[in-house]
Amino acid sequence: MTIHETAIIGQNVTIADDVNIGPFTIIHSNVEIAGNTNIGSYCELGVPNNLGKVDTTIIDTDSTIRSHSIIYAGCGFGPGLTTGHRVTIRENTYAGINFQVGTLSDIQGDCSMGDNVRFHSNVHICKTSKIGNCVWVFPFTVLTNDPHPPSEILTGPIIEDFSIVATGSILLPGSIVRKNSMVGAATVVKGEVPIGTICVGNPGKIVGKTSKILHKGDGKPAYPWYRHFRRGYPAGALPEIFDENF
Amino acid sequence: MTIHETAIIGQNVTIADDVNIGPFTIIHSNVEIAGNTNIGSYCELGVPNNLGKVDTTIIDTDSTIRSHSIIYAGCGFGPGLTTGHRVTIRENTYAGINFQVGTLSDIQGDCSMGDNVRFHSNVHICKTSKIGNCVWVFPFTVLTNDPHPPSEILTGPIIEDFSIVATGSILLPGSIVRKNSMVGAATVVKGEVPIGTICVGNPGKIVGKTSKILHKGDGKPAYPWYRHFRRGYPAGALPEIFDENF
Amino acid sequence: MTIHETAIIGQNVTIADDVNIGPFTIIHSNVEIAGNTNIGSYCELGVPNNLGKVDTTIIDTDSTIRSHSIIYAGCGFGPGLTTGHRVTIRENTYAGINFQVGTLSDIQGDCSMGDNVRFHSNVHICKTSKIGNCVWVFPFTVLTNDPHPPSEILTGPIIEDFSIVATGSILLPGSIVRKNSMVGAATVVKGEVPIGTICVGNPGKIVGKTSKILHKGDGKPAYPWYRHFRRGYPAGALPEIFDENF
Repeated sequence: MTIHETAIIGQNVTIADDVNIGPFTIIHSNVEIAGNTNIGSYCELGVPNNLGKVDTTIIDTDSTIRSHSIIYAGCGFGPGLTTGHRVTIRENTYAGINFQVGTLSDIQGDCSMGDNVRFHSNVHICKTSKIGNCVWVFPFTVLTNDPHPPSEILTGPIIEDFSIVATGSILLPGSIVRKNSMVGAATVVKGEVPIGTICVGNPGKIVGKTSKILHKGDGKPAYPWYRHFRRGYPAGALPEIFDENF
Repeated sequence: MTIHETAIIGQNVTIADDVNIGPFTIIHSNVEIAGNTNIGSYCELGVPNNLGKVDTTIIDTDSTIRSHSIIYAGCGFGPGLTTGHRVTIRENTYAGINFQVGTLSDIQGDCSMGDNVRFHSNVHICKTSKIGNCVWVFPFTVLTNDPHPPSEILTGPIIEDFSIVATGSILLPGSIVRKNSMVGAATVVKGEVPIGTICVGNPGKIVGKTSKILHKGDGKPAYPWYRHFRRGYPAGALPEIFDENF
Repeated sequence: MTIHETAIIGQNVTIADDVNIGPFTIIHSNVEIAGNTNIGSYCELGVPNNLGKVDTTIIDTDSTIRSHSIIYAGCGFGPGLTTGHRVTIRENTYAGINFQVGTLSDIQGDCSMGDNVRFHSNVHICKTSKIGNCVWVFPFTVLTNDPHPPSEILTGPIIEDFSIVATGSILLPGSIVRKNSMVGAATVVKGEVPIGTICVGNPGKIVGKTSKILHKGDGKPAYPWYRHFRRGYPAGALPEIFDENF
């Protein structure tokens, strides 16, 4: 364990033996950090906030939290959490194993991610969002929850397993991206994207099945993506058998 | 008053008795911080810059500045300033009471906001913007000011009282969003949005009066929004009597 | 030379005599900082990473790195580097002289910029991008490289000399913006934008030559922009003779 001498550690903090904590980082009270985890500099973990349903913050094994990241009290993550720099995660956010969230991403809290979810840089996840397993969200995508802002009604989007939301998309309140779907770049999604379909444009329209997008290497369908891309996934996370013709 | 021992305080700084200042925060010279104010960690207030019209920085009573925020010298805010994390506010920015500005927002300076203005996360406000009272701007909205970039001509947008700009919109140089209007998500606004109208699309088009958007709860017009949403506004800030048929 | 007492300096670091380094900044090992350079607070320069082709980080003369910026080991910049706040630059990024990169910008590494390139706030540059000389990229523009994400194929965009990409645009994988072109705000670029043309819309369409955009001051063509805007460019950087009728 290496805790830099300038780091500030609160009360009731549990830190495993093989954890590194960088300079100028603040670990607030009631944080648990499991083994083989690296925490960069200028991070704040376990920021206290009276909106958290619990006071604890759980960082599990094999995690990497890059510098300038902020995680509020009341969050929990499975093993293998990896953040970019300047990630902000508010209270009551839960994610399964191997959650990766890119630089500048802003998770507003009161939301959940399944296992093996990957957010690229500068993704904005609104409150009450529900994200399944093995979902990818690309840069500058924004999930929204208020149908007529400002109001007290919050209906965060749902993204189901294995779906992809490409760069610069907006998911409107209450939208649902069903399993194995593909939302193209700069798309504004309203309502439901059916299983295994492509949604593109503003307003977003369903233009066909994902199987019509061909891989530039082998010329076969590029989706479901786990046919050709399996890097970094643990055994069993991705289907071994799949149907290109949803 | 609690100033963390690692904070750095410049010269000619005035800090009221009941102010808290977090670890690793820098208060540069000529900053005034009034009572009942909390300033998080890793903040820089009063960053000196020769573009500021004055050297002072005024943080009034009852303010909350969250961690990693940066405010330049030459800015002033009314009571009740609330920032998210990583907010950047450049010189010659002025706002009235209860200005709320979300995480990652970037205010470029030489601009003004009225009373009770609320910016959500990652809003970009260009120089020479003028924003009225009780305006809402939602995430990833960008105000722009150069009609043929790069040039020396700057004509920042105007947003008038009670108007709403939804997620991911761009206000082109010289655009004017008149009072009580609604700019929909992912809209590119050019020219004028008349009072009480809805502008949507790229390029943005006026598609009707805001009164045609119905509240999902009570089925009545959702706009003007202050009919159904008044949380957090002080007495007198919002009209008590209003006309749904602008 | 003024290195704040709270700054942390690694091994094998070379710092010229007239360099200032702000509070709480970390200079990792193998960083070279040349003369007349100012580095703000909370910066991390030379972040070690096994993806860097070299271990060194070169900050040349007359540079300004604003607070909260992060630069990885394996990057090199010509004289006159200027960053906004919270800039993130990953490994194997190279830029020529006078590179200016605005607040919140996120450069993902493995990419290059020529001389006198200017990025405004919150620009996202993907891996394998190639950017020429005297290019301007405006806020919230995203360059993307994966034609069917996620995949192992990376084909970053190319932006050639003197071209402009306006606010909120997305350059799709493999797109090429040829010399002296203008991509309008909120445009999604696919394929090639020919020399001296305007591309606007989603999907982006070529709508004419840049010479048809007239300067609001003198009524002459606003492009090529260096006819009327030359502020901050060194002698010889911009053409003295040019043709408005590409």
